[in-house]
Amino acid sequence: MIGVICLNPALDITYHVPAVDWTGVNRPSSVRARPGGKGLNVARTLRSLGAEVLVMGLAGGITGAGVDAALRELGVPADFVPVGGETRRTVTIVDGRGGEAASFNEPGPVTGAAEFGELCARYDEALAGCAAVVLSGSLPPGLPADSYATLIEMAAAAGVPAVLDTHGEALLRGAAACPAIVKPNLAELEALTGRPLCTARGADRQAVAAAAGQLRATGAQAVVASLGAAGLLATTQDGSWHAFPPAAVTGNATGAGDAVAAGLAHGLVLGRPWDERLRHAVALGTACAAAPAAGEFSPADYASILGRVTVCRDGDR
Amino acid sequence: MIGVICLNPALDITYHVPAVDWTGVNRPSSVRARPGGKGLNVARTLRSLGAEVLVMGLAGGITGAGVDAALRELGVPADFVPVGGETRRTVTIVDGRGGEAASFNEPGPVTGAAEFGELCARYDEALAGCAAVVLSGSLPPGLPADSYATLIEMAAAAGVPAVLDTHGEALLRGAAACPAIVKPNLAELEALTGRPLCTARGADRQAVAAAAGQLRATGAQAVVASLGAAGLLATTQDGSWHAFPPAAVTGNATGAGDAVAAGLAHGLVLGRPWDERLRHAVALGTACAAAPAAGEFSPADYASILGRVTVCRDGDR
Repeated sequence: MIGVICLNPALDITYHVPAVDWTGVNRPSSVRARPGGKGLNVARTLRSLGAEVLVMGLAGGITGAGVDAALRELGVPADFVPVGGETRRTVTIVDGRGGEAASFNEPGPVTGAAEFGELCARYDEALAGCAAVVLSGSLPPGLPADSYATLIEMAAAAGVPAVLDTHGEALLRGAAACPAIVKPNLAELEALTGRPLCTARGADRQAVAAAAGQLRATGAQAVVASLGAAGLLATTQDGSWHAFPPAAVTGNATGAGDAVAAGLAHGLVLGRPWDERLRHAVALGTACAAAPAAGEFSPADYASILGRVTVCRDGDR
Repeated sequence: MIGVICLNPALDITYHVPAVDWTGVNRPSSVRARPGGKGLNVARTLRSLGAEVLVMGLAGGITGAGVDAALRELGVPADFVPVGGETRRTVTIVDGRGGEAASFNEPGPVTGAAEFGELCARYDEALAGCAAVVLSGSLPPGLPADSYATLIEMAAAAGVPAVLDTHGEALLRGAAACPAIVKPNLAELEALTGRPLCTARGADRQAVAAAAGQLRATGAQAVVASLGAAGLLATTQDGSWHAFPPAAVTGNATGAGDAVAAGLAHGLVLGRPWDERLRHAVALGTACAAAPAAGEFSPADYASILGRVTVCRDGDR
């Protein structure tokens, strides 16, 4: 079983409006509401791969109950600790004219130490049945930046490897707790290092590799930087790799990053060597970017892309 | 007790964003979620006036449960028939720069005859304890346009007067069932008659009176047209009146219209003569327009405005 920690889940609401009036009353032509937050996308992707998963997290209020019920409908087992606040919503409005979208992300409920303590107790019990854990997404307001570090240390004590996908201080503190893999994207690495990592021609791979090495030096066993359409750059104790898809796919970037995290955790649990792990992660990420909703992908896309991913070991070319 | 029928309630979500990026990701500085839909605003205003109310309506899914729970917290008794679909949300985004707002109104759950039948059964039972009923707001998709007419006829059979506040075909059919009062606004009257009722100097009172008379001729015992800041124009079997506030208040127009409906129902139940009924309705509407949220008002505003409302009987000037 793979444990997926989602401390700040969401209900993602998407409205399609044929021609938005940004100063008036609109009647969406379609309304979609589904469980969201990076962790839940990871869990759904893992579930689609046939992996056994358990979502653990914090949820509150009517929106929390809605997320819980919707996950159950999707066949994703979840064990949420109830919190006093209301689980957050995200609202995305897609304008039918140009396909442009505006999102409004609520911050999530202020969460207290007692609520996090209850989560830790349940998590500690569940670790015995976990082959790996994925810790993904933002921390809700109120939780200290070392919350992921605490969970990673608990996993390590139980002999369970951890994959971390978050940003800012929570990423820095989490990386220092020596997880098996951290998966920052370019923006997250740039924020950490304070250096631009892109040139006019795209990601500056040398600069990214240096930033990833810097992050790995703080404790993480491996750093896999996601470069969007340019694939993944992995810096590990066994060497470095660049893996990239056959062609750029424009699409759902959030879903793609979460699919990469799912693919890395899946490969870790299956004992795949790094090159194969990255090949699958790139194929999954690319297939998910092409799908309309985060956490979903077409298995045919995944299979078709898998054979066309290029994986280079550092020094190969 | 005043029964308030709300067939298409809503959860009203409001985001304040300091400077909206209509093509990007926004983090609202404040998030407010409260029960909405015209009927629920009427019920809250009546409750604030100290009237005993019972909300009857249709609600479904997690959002329906949320509306029900939030009403209970506000001390408004409600009896919702559960429906298979999901109760609608409305999302309003207020831009902190200019105060402009965009709203996105979901249509509401498709509702079937069996669900409406169950509502009718409960309503019929509750009518014995009602001094009046208010039927307010849109019909959910799936219900026929004569649904309000059915409910008004049932009330009449039980000797209970009805106040109707809706639009389009449901208003026309409802008016034909001879309710005590219908309360269209200018836009609704214009849509019914197909004639513009405003000039550059505001509402054309003569044209409005003619349109109201036309609507009254279809069956309604009284028509009270709300003219926004220009007050109310009433056409009844006892005569016609114009009642208007001391000064124009710009603010929450939806809340103001619902407060007028509440004021009219309250005056009806208390047996106030038409001039007093209108005076209170105008004061309530004006006080509610000045309040930040629909269904709320400052009692001090209400009391202060009450003494300064002008009520003219047709022919008085």
